[in-house]
Amino acid sequence: MNSFGQIFRITTFGESHGAAVGGVIDGMPAGILVDEDFIQYELDRRRPGQSRLTTARNEADKVEILSGTFEGKTTGCPIGFLVRNTNQHSQDYENMRDVFRPSHADYTYTQKYGIRDHRGGGRSSARETISRVVAGAFAKLALRQMGISIQAYTQQVGGITLPGTYKDYDLSLTESNDVRCPDLTYAQKMADLITKVKAEGDTIGGVVSCVIKGCPIGLGEPVFGKLHALLGHAMLSINAVKGFEYGLGFAGVTERGSQQNDKMIPLPNGKIGFATNNSGGIQGGISNGEDIYFRVAFKPVATLLMEQDTVTADGEATKLTARGRHDACVLPRAVPVVEAMAAITILDAYLLQQTKTM
Amino acid sequence: MNSFGQIFRITTFGESHGAAVGGVIDGMPAGILVDEDFIQYELDRRRPGQSRLTTARNEADKVEILSGTFEGKTTGCPIGFLVRNTNQHSQDYENMRDVFRPSHADYTYTQKYGIRDHRGGGRSSARETISRVVAGAFAKLALRQMGISIQAYTQQVGGITLPGTYKDYDLSLTESNDVRCPDLTYAQKMADLITKVKAEGDTIGGVVSCVIKGCPIGLGEPVFGKLHALLGHAMLSINAVKGFEYGLGFAGVTERGSQQNDKMIPLPNGKIGFATNNSGGIQGGISNGEDIYFRVAFKPVATLLMEQDTVTADGEATKLTARGRHDACVLPRAVPVVEAMAAITILDAYLLQQTKTM
Amino acid sequence: MNSFGQIFRITTFGESHGAAVGGVIDGMPAGILVDEDFIQYELDRRRPGQSRLTTARNEADKVEILSGTFEGKTTGCPIGFLVRNTNQHSQDYENMRDVFRPSHADYTYTQKYGIRDHRGGGRSSARETISRVVAGAFAKLALRQMGISIQAYTQQVGGITLPGTYKDYDLSLTESNDVRCPDLTYAQKMADLITKVKAEGDTIGGVVSCVIKGCPIGLGEPVFGKLHALLGHAMLSINAVKGFEYGLGFAGVTERGSQQNDKMIPLPNGKIGFATNNSGGIQGGISNGEDIYFRVAFKPVATLLMEQDTVTADGEATKLTARGRHDACVLPRAVPVVEAMAAITILDAYLLQQTKTM
Amino acid sequence: MNSFGQIFRITTFGESHGAAVGGVIDGMPAGILVDEDFIQYELDRRRPGQSRLTTARNEADKVEILSGTFEGKTTGCPIGFLVRNTNQHSQDYENMRDVFRPSHADYTYTQKYGIRDHRGGGRSSARETISRVVAGAFAKLALRQMGISIQAYTQQVGGITLPGTYKDYDLSLTESNDVRCPDLTYAQKMADLITKVKAEGDTIGGVVSCVIKGCPIGLGEPVFGKLHALLGHAMLSINAVKGFEYGLGFAGVTERGSQQNDKMIPLPNGKIGFATNNSGGIQGGISNGEDIYFRVAFKPVATLLMEQDTVTADGEATKLTARGRHDACVLPRAVPVVEAMAAITILDAYLLQQTKTM
Repeated sequence: MNSFGQIFRITTFGESHGAAVGGVIDGMPAGILVDEDFIQYELDRRRPGQSRLTTARNEADKVEILSGTFEGKTTGCPIGFLVRNTNQHSQDYENMRDVFRPSHADYTYTQKYGIRDHRGGGRSSARETISRVVAGAFAKLALRQMGISIQAYTQQVGGITLPGTYKDYDLSLTESNDVRCPDLTYAQKMADLITKVKAEGDTIGGVVSCVIKGCPIGLGEPVFGKLHALLGHAMLSINAVKGFEYGLGFAGVTERGSQQNDKMIPLPNGKIGFATNNSGGIQGGISNGEDIYFRVAFKPVATLLMEQDTVTADGEATKLTARGRHDACVLPRAVPVVEAMAAITILDAYLLQQTKTM
Repeated sequence: MNSFGQIFRITTFGESHGAAVGGVIDGMPAGILVDEDFIQYELDRRRPGQSRLTTARNEADKVEILSGTFEGKTTGCPIGFLVRNTNQHSQDYENMRDVFRPSHADYTYTQKYGIRDHRGGGRSSARETISRVVAGAFAKLALRQMGISIQAYTQQVGGITLPGTYKDYDLSLTESNDVRCPDLTYAQKMADLITKVKAEGDTIGGVVSCVIKGCPIGLGEPVFGKLHALLGHAMLSINAVKGFEYGLGFAGVTERGSQQNDKMIPLPNGKIGFATNNSGGIQGGISNGEDIYFRVAFKPVATLLMEQDTVTADGEATKLTARGRHDACVLPRAVPVVEAMAAITILDAYLLQQTKTM
Repeated sequence: MNSFGQIFRITTFGESHGAAVGGVIDGMPAGILVDEDFIQYELDRRRPGQSRLTTARNEADKVEILSGTFEGKTTGCPIGFLVRNTNQHSQDYENMRDVFRPSHADYTYTQKYGIRDHRGGGRSSARETISRVVAGAFAKLALRQMGISIQAYTQQVGGITLPGTYKDYDLSLTESNDVRCPDLTYAQKMADLITKVKAEGDTIGGVVSCVIKGCPIGLGEPVFGKLHALLGHAMLSINAVKGFEYGLGFAGVTERGSQQNDKMIPLPNGKIGFATNNSGGIQGGISNGEDIYFRVAFKPVATLLMEQDTVTADGEATKLTARGRHDACVLPRAVPVVEAMAAITILDAYLLQQTKTM
Repeated sequence: MNSFGQIFRITTFGESHGAAVGGVIDGMPAGILVDEDFIQYELDRRRPGQSRLTTARNEADKVEILSGTFEGKTTGCPIGFLVRNTNQHSQDYENMRDVFRPSHADYTYTQKYGIRDHRGGGRSSARETISRVVAGAFAKLALRQMGISIQAYTQQVGGITLPGTYKDYDLSLTESNDVRCPDLTYAQKMADLITKVKAEGDTIGGVVSCVIKGCPIGLGEPVFGKLHALLGHAMLSINAVKGFEYGLGFAGVTERGSQQNDKMIPLPNGKIGFATNNSGGIQGGISNGEDIYFRVAFKPVATLLMEQDTVTADGEATKLTARGRHDACVLPRAVPVVEAMAAITILDAYLLQQTKTM
């Protein structure tokens, strides 16, 4: 099940140390201007080795678009693309061939398929998210035309949490620092924590927040395609994600309906508005025209550069110290991936909404 | 998009005040014994009017199975079923025909489709979950044969939270009280809170916890069909759900990898085990044989039996005091719905896993 | 796999001698006027016992619409519906419980599922097509608004073939006779043949032709959703169908490209037209605005009211003379089923086309 | 809609004169030996320029497998692959930029998407079938392990028809001649006809026959996934196909049921057999263990190397003589494509059948 989406549908392939990762985008609307610089810019935001906070694997991650565009525009035909792997150090993984990393996918892939490409985590590597970022960039190009924008940022690293909501910050500062946090003071604190954890050979988790602005009313498909259910599915499919909430989320369960309900009000322009947005821009699974916002929890990376107790494929106790180049914290690089999956989901819902009336 | 699942696939239909709700189950394995008493028992757990804590709508909710069974067994053919609506009081909703309830689906349905059945919330009513419970009951019958069991319970109502994890309680006590909380002291506190909130015409949210035991290793489909992504999609598609987390979830993001990783150990029987289960039974999106556990956040019900400011369909300010019979807290009745969606998801993944090798 | 269609999607259930047959229509556009008389009229065209040429099973086949409509219009929500079975004579099938009818689905269902509802053919009965006709009637209501019409007719029964093409006949005469042939002389010959075959306890095959008028340019999805591939899939899913061809079909393979190509010409109105329509209204899998026409081959019904050699479930040789009420020729009643599947396919393609541009 | 299959699912991309064609195979069973020589052999059977009867476009069509295999076996992860286009002569198509070829997809693509890659037919080119042949080769590798084989051959070119059925010929001779006809005398006649037509700048159609041996009982999914409906869909999705029939097909409609029914008989080994196979190996949409056979009609290629009347994009009358390198008859190269689509369909049905019981 390597596809996602109903109308705008992405299919991905590729292992961390195989020849390439890539995918096919089906259902891209025709006639959209293809800004290749923007697509590469999005990939660069996800690229390993982009800062001292991330893995040192040095990949240019240049995307090659193989089909579906003509004279600078999309044609409505499927867009094939790939990114070559060039900086594999497969020998770093030789000691993991028959040993399972704790809390990693090594053991479960082996049990599921009876075979596993152990090099660099194979298919379970987050390198797969390259394909999502490419597809997300195409989706953003289409959404941009409709005035829809998506912005994610690192809200929490370990115990350091940016207070307040997205409305309290200038999100244009997000890309100004390596952590992708829109507050420079907090960004520094988070960076220091990541640096410290990395030096210890350990890892740390965190939370990405995301806001979607300009989404029209009416997106989302009752009952199983509720917009937040699709967004949740999309986010939970990203490596290392452990939780998803939108609007007030878990915190809101303690409230009364009379506190939490978003009062509806007449707007000066004759339209209908809301006094608050506790709903997170979605009511009954359908967008209501307000900002959509949600949070995504990432666990600490499982691969540690310190010794851990584990077992071999034969079930013998052993010790493992991973080699290879790994992120101590995925948050900075997860931000563009969260945005990409949000863009894919929203564009798909947008296109599907065209079919509701004749 | 009123279908869910790839192999074991449910399609539902029906409005709150229409003739009936029902659905079609496709992909049910052949030869499973159909225990109709059990199916009705599951529906009775979800039934309105089952206790003083729930809505007073008095529906017997008797299911009629229309196809797909023969001489007490499933045939592999689709199972059509329905539950007649018998206790509608549609006139209670007459004042909502042209007025939108705050934080409800009234406004978004109208905007999406240009038309809305306002009676009892129409399609957006939680009455739709009847069909999920019927399908979930069939799924449980199949899973039971494989030794897989699913148990949910009310873990939190408003600010009252059952401490610890599912391992700290005897879950067989869950059905012993109206709240469906496995601790009788906490159950009483929760019941008292719901009663108080209800008396005020207000509503309150909460959290359902769920544990799946006996799930074999290998279920879940990288990369977009990760088992927790499918479970998250399933849960987020239930009315009033605002968040989903599994394993340590949001709380776990503050931990180091060295704390959170589940150490792998040799078991006395020669198999591989885990010293802890922080992963929540899923690694790399694939079940690892340990208990799968997750939490689902429910917001307070939007419909209040107290006056609220809102607008009419023409965008005029007005005040609305809902009539009709509504739950002050959905948690007690949400427990069987969470179980049903979990059962549907796990059976689907179980069947899909049969296709991985030849 | 009891669903068909991507956006306009029908799911069906029901056995011949079960409680009911029915289904769910998902993706019906909102705001379409529901003409219940028309829906019942379509069912009446398919009804058994409608003439001396068809099976004597006497079913009113009254449809009950359970959801998805409000105050005479579709709401965009799923349409559940059912038709009760009332005139089963299950005892007629008792001698087929452990005996397989030659060329019927009895044996293959038993092998596939390990269990079979033998009464009236169970799920393999053409009674399942009731659900298709209901869904097709809804599709026709939507297509009618767009000026798209669909007309099928009996073109061949056994060796009696109506010469020429659909352009040579007044198709409004199709419903004037029991065979549903637009030429009364040929209709009589066909009726005589069916009557003769029926009297002998035997059965006979034939061909249905169908034409779709008013279809806009651009429907159909390269490469696997070519419009004729979807139509072919739809037709081949109907009971007893053995072949599908569109445009010149099999006969056209003997021609040169220079003969068969449809010359493109400027029309007086400035648009582009075609001098001929050998393509059958579809080029490259996409409708070109001309009439779409195709032919569907039906084999003789397998169930004979005469003695046949066959085997028991234990593999013993035996003889079987079927009881029950069976059509000697399905063609007259197949006409509305072919139309229904065509309508479902075209509406689905029509809605999908809305998603190609933004 | 560039994907086909439910469990074994292929997604293709690529235009005739773009950088590459390729695809992703999802759902390939794990642990299958990857015989790359066989995959290339299959591609070579489809390759342009393989004989004097086919287009002169000279492409090596070397496939590069990018993922999903490890140490010579499939891993269960998606298989990405591509074939570079190297011998495009895009300038040959410059005169078709704003002119539509009669009976080609030029006009309909332009109308559907509002944009068209005119070079070499773009996405509508049969070059897309490369991806099907690669996927089909993987499917054949899996089916081979289960003893299932698939063999197609050219049965008809223009008016020259190989008499009898597949049982009358030694199909191992199919690859012994350029036409892929198992009878050398007929092969020569067909080759002569193609050569003659080609010399005139014209084109000619024909029929491919295909037989599947060793298919187990039980494949195919009532009611919309009937095995022949899926095969028909698969075949009708191939460029230039105008018709599909299985078993006795159109010819069989003139028969009585008493003639056509396949008598069931006890076999010496205690199993159940059939005296004849008029059903074509499928009854009720489910395979019955006999040979599956079907026929596929191909129209003459639309692109002619002779002058034709047509129109420009502006609707002006004009004349067009195509340049470029085109097949005068697709039959010889269609044989491996038919086999590939059959293999994809059968493997998908085979895998799906694993989910019918627990």
